[in-house]
Amino acid sequence: MPTLPADEIRQKVSAIYISAGATQREADIVADLLVESNLLGHDSHGVIRVPQYVRGLEEGNIKSGAETVIDRETAATAVINGNWGFGHVTASDAMQIAIQKAKEASIGVVTVHNCHHVARLGAFPAMAAEEGLVGLITNNGHGSDKALAPWGGMGRVLPANCLAAAFPSDNDWPVAVDLTVAVAAGGKMRVAANRGEKVLMGAVVDKAGRPSDDPEQYVSLGGALAPFGGPVGHKGSALAIAIDILSGALSPAGCTQENPPVTGNALFIQVINIEAFQPLDTFRAEVGKFVDYVKATPTAEGFDEVLIPGERSYRTKQERLVNGIPVEDATWDQVEALAARLL
Amino acid sequence: MPTLPADEIRQKVSAIYISAGATQREADIVADLLVESNLLGHDSHGVIRVPQYVRGLEEGNIKSGAETVIDRETAATAVINGNWGFGHVTASDAMQIAIQKAKEASIGVVTVHNCHHVARLGAFPAMAAEEGLVGLITNNGHGSDKALAPWGGMGRVLPANCLAAAFPSDNDWPVAVDLTVAVAAGGKMRVAANRGEKVLMGAVVDKAGRPSDDPEQYVSLGGALAPFGGPVGHKGSALAIAIDILSGALSPAGCTQENPPVTGNALFIQVINIEAFQPLDTFRAEVGKFVDYVKATPTAEGFDEVLIPGERSYRTKQERLVNGIPVEDATWDQVEALAARLL
Repeated sequence: MPTLPADEIRQKVSAIYISAGATQREADIVADLLVESNLLGHDSHGVIRVPQYVRGLEEGNIKSGAETVIDRETAATAVINGNWGFGHVTASDAMQIAIQKAKEASIGVVTVHNCHHVARLGAFPAMAAEEGLVGLITNNGHGSDKALAPWGGMGRVLPANCLAAAFPSDNDWPVAVDLTVAVAAGGKMRVAANRGEKVLMGAVVDKAGRPSDDPEQYVSLGGALAPFGGPVGHKGSALAIAIDILSGALSPAGCTQENPPVTGNALFIQVINIEAFQPLDTFRAEVGKFVDYVKATPTAEGFDEVLIPGERSYRTKQERLVNGIPVEDATWDQVEALAARLL
Repeated sequence: MPTLPADEIRQKVSAIYISAGATQREADIVADLLVESNLLGHDSHGVIRVPQYVRGLEEGNIKSGAETVIDRETAATAVINGNWGFGHVTASDAMQIAIQKAKEASIGVVTVHNCHHVARLGAFPAMAAEEGLVGLITNNGHGSDKALAPWGGMGRVLPANCLAAAFPSDNDWPVAVDLTVAVAAGGKMRVAANRGEKVLMGAVVDKAGRPSDDPEQYVSLGGALAPFGGPVGHKGSALAIAIDILSGALSPAGCTQENPPVTGNALFIQVINIEAFQPLDTFRAEVGKFVDYVKATPTAEGFDEVLIPGERSYRTKQERLVNGIPVEDATWDQVEALAARLL
């Protein structure tokens, strides 16, 4: 398994996308976000995805050069049309628009449609937090991407909708939440199935709605992902429904539906200008003090430390910036094969 | 157990509060919100709470006549000081300010400090939904109210923070989410302990952080509530932390802390003017269509119907408006005793 410097991976991935037809800006944004996911330890959303977006370009599903267009706006809001460019680029553009609005109008709320998959949702609120703002984002599957059984039901009806947020602190890292309403994402089920491994009991339900630890129930046997919450899964299901409405019904994308015409991500993005509420330094210090307070909790059996959301990722990034990013052979072989074909 | 018309309970409760020193407006708001909780079937936040707020008034913790004051504001935001009046009144006032801002600036975001317990959080977003707006609210314990063990830790460190949202639809009821990040609220543990009943395994942890089904572990034995999520309880814990920051650090109230000087609720309230994004009729129809789609899911074993958040409460209210509200003898005896003493 090669361990490579972030810069080397970033340059190679960017060059591949340019050769596949992306603009320099698109290629740089996508390469940067994929490598950032690897740096943070979220390898499922890192360079393993390179072939997927090359294929998207080559098949014409991802439109290179697509412009991010504001359909309508007020000082604090916008509805944004991604015109089916790279989801990474559309979401980055949309977050920048929300950031600008928050700086000028205290709050920026934008919704996004005609947007391809944006990969790791947490990437975008982090952009706000870097500028001393609170960032929030939710997504649905643009009406599609059905994976999850709602509470009380069976079969794939809702997407594994996600929610991410980032809050600046006076630590070196923001408090950063990034979660799916499913017990675990569908991608993890596919990995486990390929490895012949079991998953957490109840992470999937079979096609009759019964809890199972067999990932094949989801991957090949007609079952579904379960909403998180365990015996109180109605909470995960309720969050899935609320997120679907925020993301889908406040833009022309629509909520999850019987016969969705397209797939992608519809987004709800919000940025909060902290200075409208509290001096930024006060806010940062309060969050830092809160983090210290929670981290001082005595650990439960089986834990060495109470980790705050965003903390582990930050540590992984520091380590990988120094020592490089380990990339599985199969993944790097795919990248090299694309490089050989395209560069 | 008496079954009483909502109007009769409302009038009696309002009269009690006026006699205990509340203004007419305060008494009407509190009585209305308590009875509304009973109508919706959330009896834990209904008239069972009447003595608690009478005691608050009589002990001087709740300040009758307190004004809800805007500390600072922009077109889309405000920081609101409740001056330790009735939490119900402060939160109602704050929601009305957020609604007004959303009507004028597309988005209204307000944070609230010096606010007593507001009881059922879901009451406030419903006010926005009634006016064709999206309402959201989160709370922490104003730095206090520790009940929950964070993921990986043990002991009471975080409050059972809550999140509620309401979305207008073209059904007769809004989609309404109202959840705590704990598996179940502390009040339910007290009820179960008093009845000598067990609770859901893992709803509480003992003082060493081990999952338990004994509510006494929480009530009297030094344990804590567990974050929801079951084996993925880090998600409930992450939500608790995000909500604490939104509610506590964006106002002078503060996040949960080692030695909190007061207890109450700090609030984050947001109202979204749907018309800034989509025509209201289009949004309502989209939500209605989504509700129909999810409800059409075949039911899992043990379920007769897939219920949407807010649906059961609506049905209970229709039934109780016709047939009256059943109130346990012990609760009604307490109300009658207060009436006898004060009226």
